[in-house]
Amino acid sequence: MASKFYTIEPIGAVHSELTRLEDAPMQGDEGAPEAWLELTSLAAPGLLGIRAGDELIVLTWLHLAERDVLQVHPRGDLNRPLTGVFATRSPDRPNPVGLHRVQVLEVIEHKLRVAPLEAIDKTPVIDIKPVLAASTSDR
Amino acid sequence: MASKFYTIEPIGAVHSELTRLEDAPMQGDEGAPEAWLELTSLAAPGLLGIRAGDELIVLTWLHLAERDVLQVHPRGDLNRPLTGVFATRSPDRPNPVGLHRVQVLEVIEHKLRVAPLEAIDKTPVIDIKPVLAASTSDR
Repeated sequence: MASKFYTIEPIGAVHSELTRLEDAPMQGDEGAPEAWLELTSLAAPGLLGIRAGDELIVLTWLHLAERDVLQVHPRGDLNRPLTGVFATRSPDRPNPVGLHRVQVLEVIEHKLRVAPLEAIDKTPVIDIKPVLAASTSDR
Repeated sequence: MASKFYTIEPIGAVHSELTRLEDAPMQGDEGAPEAWLELTSLAAPGLLGIRAGDELIVLTWLHLAERDVLQVHPRGDLNRPLTGVFATRSPDRPNPVGLHRVQVLEVIEHKLRVAPLEAIDKTPVIDIKPVLAASTSDR
């Protein structure tokens, strides 16, 4: 298959007290803290209409992930059989996009305070989408 | 903010009877058909462990989207106020990543038959993740 490549330009970055991967929980609901998402001035107009209380899906680029990994032991547990990365939530995968469901706590200009977020400080943010209330079909 | 760019290399593509954007429903649960996801031979080992019946989140690159759009009228309805793209599911946005929740109907080698999928034929697939049964926090 002929593959065309595409370029991701981050729309912002995470500011978090989490600075080390080894301190970050694997999922947001495993004790992750709140964090700020700071958008670039270029992308900031895309926030119009987002308010405290909104439920969002934040897409990040897991910039420290290993992109040449295709099979892992889930959650690093060697007792679990080798599994394809597309059947796991491992950050290591060809295109390391992170999905994070968060609630908006505060909006100040081009910054959103959100929780919970397990991504570490300086993780690039590549997209933000609303959770659709009417269904779960596209979360 | 200094922004580093990242490169997306598709892991496969959608094969669908939907060939025109104007025929595609806006969301999977709005009458979208089944489709095949065909992975590249390079990415195929990442499917190990995926079985018929699994619920997945497919991430696509909406290659026909306009990337310089930051505000839209939701669902193209001019009666709705101009809204930031990050508060909508518009395909037009700086990094046009599509999220699609699907069920696996069949797995044949490096191809998955899934439903429902509103993405059109030839849409690049960039990642596949399992839906986490234990929580909805990261969908």
